[in-house]
Amino acid sequence: MGGSLALAIKRHGLASNVTGWSRRESTLQQALSLGVVDCYEVDLSLALKHADCVVVATPTQFAESLILEVLSQVNDDVIVTDVASVKGNLVKVLERRFGRVPSNVVLGHPICGSEQSGVSAARADLYQNQRVVLASNEGTSEKALAAITKLWRELGAELFFMTAAEHDKILALTSHLPHTLAYALVVQLLHEDVDDVFRFAGGGFRDFTRIAGSDPRMWREIIFANDKQLLMALTNFEQKIAEFKQLITDGDSASLEELFAEAKVARDNYVENYTNSYAEQTLKD
Amino acid sequence: MGGSLALAIKRHGLASNVTGWSRRESTLQQALSLGVVDCYEVDLSLALKHADCVVVATPTQFAESLILEVLSQVNDDVIVTDVASVKGNLVKVLERRFGRVPSNVVLGHPICGSEQSGVSAARADLYQNQRVVLASNEGTSEKALAAITKLWRELGAELFFMTAAEHDKILALTSHLPHTLAYALVVQLLHEDVDDVFRFAGGGFRDFTRIAGSDPRMWREIIFANDKQLLMALTNFEQKIAEFKQLITDGDSASLEELFAEAKVARDNYVENYTNSYAEQTLKD
Repeated sequence: MGGSLALAIKRHGLASNVTGWSRRESTLQQALSLGVVDCYEVDLSLALKHADCVVVATPTQFAESLILEVLSQVNDDVIVTDVASVKGNLVKVLERRFGRVPSNVVLGHPICGSEQSGVSAARADLYQNQRVVLASNEGTSEKALAAITKLWRELGAELFFMTAAEHDKILALTSHLPHTLAYALVVQLLHEDVDDVFRFAGGGFRDFTRIAGSDPRMWREIIFANDKQLLMALTNFEQKIAEFKQLITDGDSASLEELFAEAKVARDNYVENYTNSYAEQTLKD
Repeated sequence: MGGSLALAIKRHGLASNVTGWSRRESTLQQALSLGVVDCYEVDLSLALKHADCVVVATPTQFAESLILEVLSQVNDDVIVTDVASVKGNLVKVLERRFGRVPSNVVLGHPICGSEQSGVSAARADLYQNQRVVLASNEGTSEKALAAITKLWRELGAELFFMTAAEHDKILALTSHLPHTLAYALVVQLLHEDVDDVFRFAGGGFRDFTRIAGSDPRMWREIIFANDKQLLMALTNFEQKIAEFKQLITDGDSASLEELFAEAKVARDNYVENYTNSYAEQTLKD
């Protein structure tokens, strides 16, 4: 994410200089040799020294501490943003430290699931036509919000503005819940009394559980960062299962088919309107 | 399924004559012109007249009545098999009618998910290296079992022998449960208090819910044909959700990560051992 953003900013000439910082110098050397950054610093305070805008692009587990560290080192003329998957946990640590989300902070989340990571996977066009959520609030300075809005628009992103809580509820439903369910299904099958049940799983299972191959540490962090919203989503899902079970037990095939049909229409519309149809096509092959 | 099987039988020279029968004559005309069958009959009794082996290849909703109809018209020298997704419902109607599953019946299920249907999608190589379950029992004649075994082996399928109940439990877990969960998630999102939540769904959601685009009528029939096994699978899934919720509520991130890691290993092994790696690759693009 960070690599692609740096590359896109350079490609679009949106900054006179892009300075990289990372925990690992090897990553920085690679970023420099790939032209992803103009220069780098191993020392965070040196990297921040001349910055007008800082993008905190780390996995969820490091975002809280790093954004606090950055804010402790820059003055409030410097705009700070991020790309993490959950926003509420950041709001919480910022409020705890500063009493409120500082006016120079605009939290962001580009919702584009490239499964590739690492600086070598950086693509300047990753954000073209992609959805990006910006979570600002009444304390956010106009200057900061305008700058981050301009940044993403220049890169071709489609922007959505909402509160951190709205963002986290939506992501709990569309991402954190399905990930949890996919993990739960695979765990269930492991513990069922059937020898090597996976041998008999077909293409539907393969696609349904693809996200259960995601990084366990990363997902543990996302889930605990968004635990309250996810628990609500899981509780609502339990209610849906109970409803489906009742229809099956009652033999109410008409109502069940109606729900399936409602789901199919919604899912077909989703594919039609919100996915890259080429990607969907490859899934069907 | 039926078209591909007919084509494969002809290609491998396993029958001197393949006669087609269908409710719709247009389907039969198409099958004949595509070379999927050698001839066809509009009248079922004429189609069955000289048959040594009958394959009932219909969606689940027609399998029960058609297999009974076929068995009422052929003598017990004629071997009868099928390709439906659920076996227990067929065992039940056969036992109700004949007191037991007739000795000339070998129930079968090729577990290969081609999403394409219709005779024009018939492929002679569909069953090459595919898993096929045969559900026989102590009353099945050796001749019938040997013939159906030979048929599938000649077509390159990998055979698994088990009872109808074992088959239905496995399919409930690997197929009917994920389909139900995918439908349930889409229905839940429709009913959540978020405007157009699908707009924010990414690639994980897309793959997880692909099977919620399946035909509602067909899935209603499969689910009611396998209702008891599916209800058990749903109940066990509810227990897994409850377990995950408890870990989240307790803040037990280590245990949750362990379950995620266990799922990831199982899912990675499944991809490694039981899926076409090319298909998995296209999913990641």
